Amino acid sequence: MLGWDCGASRCSFKMMPPSGQGIRLAYLVLNLASICLPTPLWKDRDSLMQEEKAHQMGGNLVLNRQEQQLSTKLINLKKKEVAAAITTGQFPPSMHFFRAKSLIDQSTVFSILKRMPKGAVLHLHDYAILSVDWLVHNATYLPDCYICFTHTGTVRFRFSKPHPPNPVPGQCSQWVLLETYRKQLRNVTEFDSSLLRNLTLVTDAPELAYPSQTAIWKQFEEVFLIASGLICYAPVFKAYFYQGLLEFYEDNVQYVEIRAILPPVYELDGTRHNKSWSVATYREVTRQFVEEHPDFLGAKIIFTAHRRLNVSQIKEAIVTAMALRARFPDTLAGFDLVGDEDEGHSLWDLKDALTIPYSLGVNLPYFFHAGETDWQGTSVDNNVLDALLLNTSRIGHGLALIKHPVAKNLSLKKDIPVEVCPISNQVLLFVADLLSHPAASLMAEGHPIVISPDDPPIFGAKGVSYDFYEVFMAIGGMNADLRMLKQLALNSITYSAMQLEEKTKAKEVWQKKWDQFVADLSDSFLREL
Amino acid sequence: MLGWDCGASRCSFKMMPPSGQGIRLAYLVLNLASICLPTPLWKDRDSLMQEEKAHQMGGNLVLNRQEQQLSTKLINLKKKEVAAAITTGQFPPSMHFFRAKSLIDQSTVFSILKRMPKGAVLHLHDYAILSVDWLVHNATYLPDCYICFTHTGTVRFRFSKPHPPNPVPGQCSQWVLLETYRKQLRNVTEFDSSLLRNLTLVTDAPELAYPSQTAIWKQFEEVFLIASGLICYAPVFKAYFYQGLLEFYEDNVQYVEIRAILPPVYELDGTRHNKSWSVATYREVTRQFVEEHPDFLGAKIIFTAHRRLNVSQIKEAIVTAMALRARFPDTLAGFDLVGDEDEGHSLWDLKDALTIPYSLGVNLPYFFHAGETDWQGTSVDNNVLDALLLNTSRIGHGLALIKHPVAKNLSLKKDIPVEVCPISNQVLLFVADLLSHPAASLMAEGHPIVISPDDPPIFGAKGVSYDFYEVFMAIGGMNADLRMLKQLALNSITYSAMQLEEKTKAKEVWQKKWDQFVADLSDSFLREL
Repeated sequence: MLGWDCGASRCSFKMMPPSGQGIRLAYLVLNLASICLPTPLWKDRDSLMQEEKAHQMGGNLVLNRQEQQLSTKLINLKKKEVAAAITTGQFPPSMHFFRAKSLIDQSTVFSILKRMPKGAVLHLHDYAILSVDWLVHNATYLPDCYICFTHTGTVRFRFSKPHPPNPVPGQCSQWVLLETYRKQLRNVTEFDSSLLRNLTLVTDAPELAYPSQTAIWKQFEEVFLIASGLICYAPVFKAYFYQGLLEFYEDNVQYVEIRAILPPVYELDGTRHNKSWSVATYREVTRQFVEEHPDFLGAKIIFTAHRRLNVSQIKEAIVTAMALRARFPDTLAGFDLVGDEDEGHSLWDLKDALTIPYSLGVNLPYFFHAGETDWQGTSVDNNVLDALLLNTSRIGHGLALIKHPVAKNLSLKKDIPVEVCPISNQVLLFVADLLSHPAASLMAEGHPIVISPDDPPIFGAKGVSYDFYEVFMAIGGMNADLRMLKQLALNSITYSAMQLEEKTKAKEVWQKKWDQFVADLSDSFLREL
Repeated sequence: MLGWDCGASRCSFKMMPPSGQGIRLAYLVLNLASICLPTPLWKDRDSLMQEEKAHQMGGNLVLNRQEQQLSTKLINLKKKEVAAAITTGQFPPSMHFFRAKSLIDQSTVFSILKRMPKGAVLHLHDYAILSVDWLVHNATYLPDCYICFTHTGTVRFRFSKPHPPNPVPGQCSQWVLLETYRKQLRNVTEFDSSLLRNLTLVTDAPELAYPSQTAIWKQFEEVFLIASGLICYAPVFKAYFYQGLLEFYEDNVQYVEIRAILPPVYELDGTRHNKSWSVATYREVTRQFVEEHPDFLGAKIIFTAHRRLNVSQIKEAIVTAMALRARFPDTLAGFDLVGDEDEGHSLWDLKDALTIPYSLGVNLPYFFHAGETDWQGTSVDNNVLDALLLNTSRIGHGLALIKHPVAKNLSLKKDIPVEVCPISNQVLLFVADLLSHPAASLMAEGHPIVISPDDPPIFGAKGVSYDFYEVFMAIGGMNADLRMLKQLALNSITYSAMQLEEKTKAKEVWQKKWDQFVADLSDSFLREL
């Protein structure tokens, strides 16, 4: 039986062995007496929850009244879409992007994120900035485009006049002029579709097509190889970059930074240009684009080398990077290493090359991919720490950072942001359900991050809006609001490689667009009422 | 062209616009001159890496010489198995456990972990502690066992004498005596296999069978329902618990804590026992088991209620819990809530019930499941913080903790461990690849954790060794060694609900077994040389 007594200031309770009767009795008494329950257990709850909110990305931003209203509306829209998704069992961020994309395209939240001025996109790769449709429907229809077919069922492209020399036997079929080839085909549309498939990773059954990270990385690099035959042709190179800038401009992005491996760009007669030519061309096309789109702020290039190269080769790349940066200080932002991190050299392996600029007192900013791995405790897994010790300006991906508290504290102290690329991480099998993306933890702790799409066309995406959708709907949690979005846009400018005066201008341009976006959206919400 | 000059103490470098010639030249010079590269970039590297190691779980444990040798051998074994797995593309922790189990069974690391004395297992559920084989091959062969078949293709069991009353029409077929039913069957083995399948979630194609968390939780609760018809029969109840203890004992576990919902246990004539009877029986069976296995330390019960119950029902459960704890202070450790967290009430919803013991000045320890969710920013997602504010003694699962830095700091400060159940989390679709389990981050930060199997038979596992395998091979990273394993075993005793003197005895018993394990293993490694 239970006994109890509720005094003026304190409850007391005597416990005796229970019987059915005793329990029922005590239950009735307790129900009547809930008025005397004190709540000191909760005394810190509000302040702790406030503390947590203040930590969160954007937690310290102050919104104006119009922004606040919009923020509330956005949160409500998100809740509505999440509730609907729970009913159907199809929550896009929990699904593979290849299956989720068509659902995202129908989302109102997504349509708003497309309209939002997103500032800068800082993690992109040279040959993966523009929808592959353009490559197939424009580039491959240019005169003098040849194709050959490999024995593994893929293709290679080459522009040439005269007819190109035959490929190395066993690697590819004879070169065939595409114009002639298409004329023989009964179904050109189907053929063009097969070219499109060759240029992306998109498939109906990604789990079957890509059973392991090794398998998908192989396919990933194959896609770059196929595209490079088209994109390295000088006229396509220029047009591809221009159209790529346009695609980001139309996605309401104001500035981009491109990791570029700068392979030789060739002319119809086989002439091959050097890296300086490529950087100069990037600069020239950017100037032309900005002239025609004055509310776009420009592009910078991060020269990259493949991380499978040996120390001598990386030394050469570093020297090249320093030289290019000396020649194109406004365009060439710095240096990075690319490719499957697990299969490549660690930064520590390459230290004799990577410390050259420091030793020489030369400023070569680094933008290292680091921690794009699931493996912990390997030599590659030290890359996040070593990137920071090498004074990297940003960390590409940094999935491993949450497993390295010391490195994480260092990056926080040094104010080094992580470039988070959710869709890329999902497609490349680092995280299946984006609700569990490690950036959720970084964002909750207020670690600086920026959002990037990595290689949107290869994943069947476009611009950076799809990645913003994943972050807003899932990685940031249900409470992520307009402050988080605004902070992400501001971060993208703050952590870019722009010079101080460029950043000031960028923030002005962006702010004007932001104010317009908030006003327009508030109007359209009003109209709906 | 590049120019450079290496003085006695300092390298200088003049940068001029590059040409092909200049780059090649500089490259040659730099290769010759690497002797003059300073390395102050790395000056803190060793200390930072040491700091990270010291943070890691077990990082401060000092091993004796024999342990150190064993630790090195274990790490080498792990590296060998990981290397082999990378070659085959089949790394068990990255695979679904249903497919990984047969591979784990062949692992030498696993065979060692089975032999390791693992201390206490603190997160288990009443009707999921013993392999279902025993239920099918022993319990269902007892006299007076009836079966009925539901219209959804599953079954229910009931022991009875006389013949049980017919089930509610539409819910189940007529009750059939199993002994009679089996006699009519041509293939009893096939029938028994189908019963086994009904009692686990195991399937060849989990992705197809369980497309969502809602779907798998439904099936999960169904399995408990099926099993309960067998286990709630008093003779089976006692034998099941005894055999369950034996299964853990044989897996080299020294003590267990069981979450028990304490439904009525029935006799052949339909008599139904109350909760006190169940707790007394758990105590009695434990005593008998410990008598027969003096190197086993016992079991305690955590009374649980389903989190879908309303506040009044939870109030009743809390009163019952307090009463049971008063009557069985050595056996009934405290209270918890069970069931799909996303679908149930949040702790905050239930606060009027859960604060009763505090208000009354009664000590009812809590062992809350909290943060077994992927959703962030929902009311349920506050459970990790609220569990801590309610003075929970441990956090069950706590997957969400890494998204709540304030709660995480609080749990660290209060020394509240997380009960990590890797295989459960994978099967219930919280994390696909265990390399990315959020506990990796907790372990790297030295947050206290213990390892538990949750419901091993339902996942086709046995004991806790499979979960230790996942932690040692994947979640702890390549460097996780014998110190981590030892720390996990020590933690399991430290954070158990045992009394101080019980813990002292447990540590003595465990230490003796540990020393024997280290000695035996060192011997067997020696013999292999």
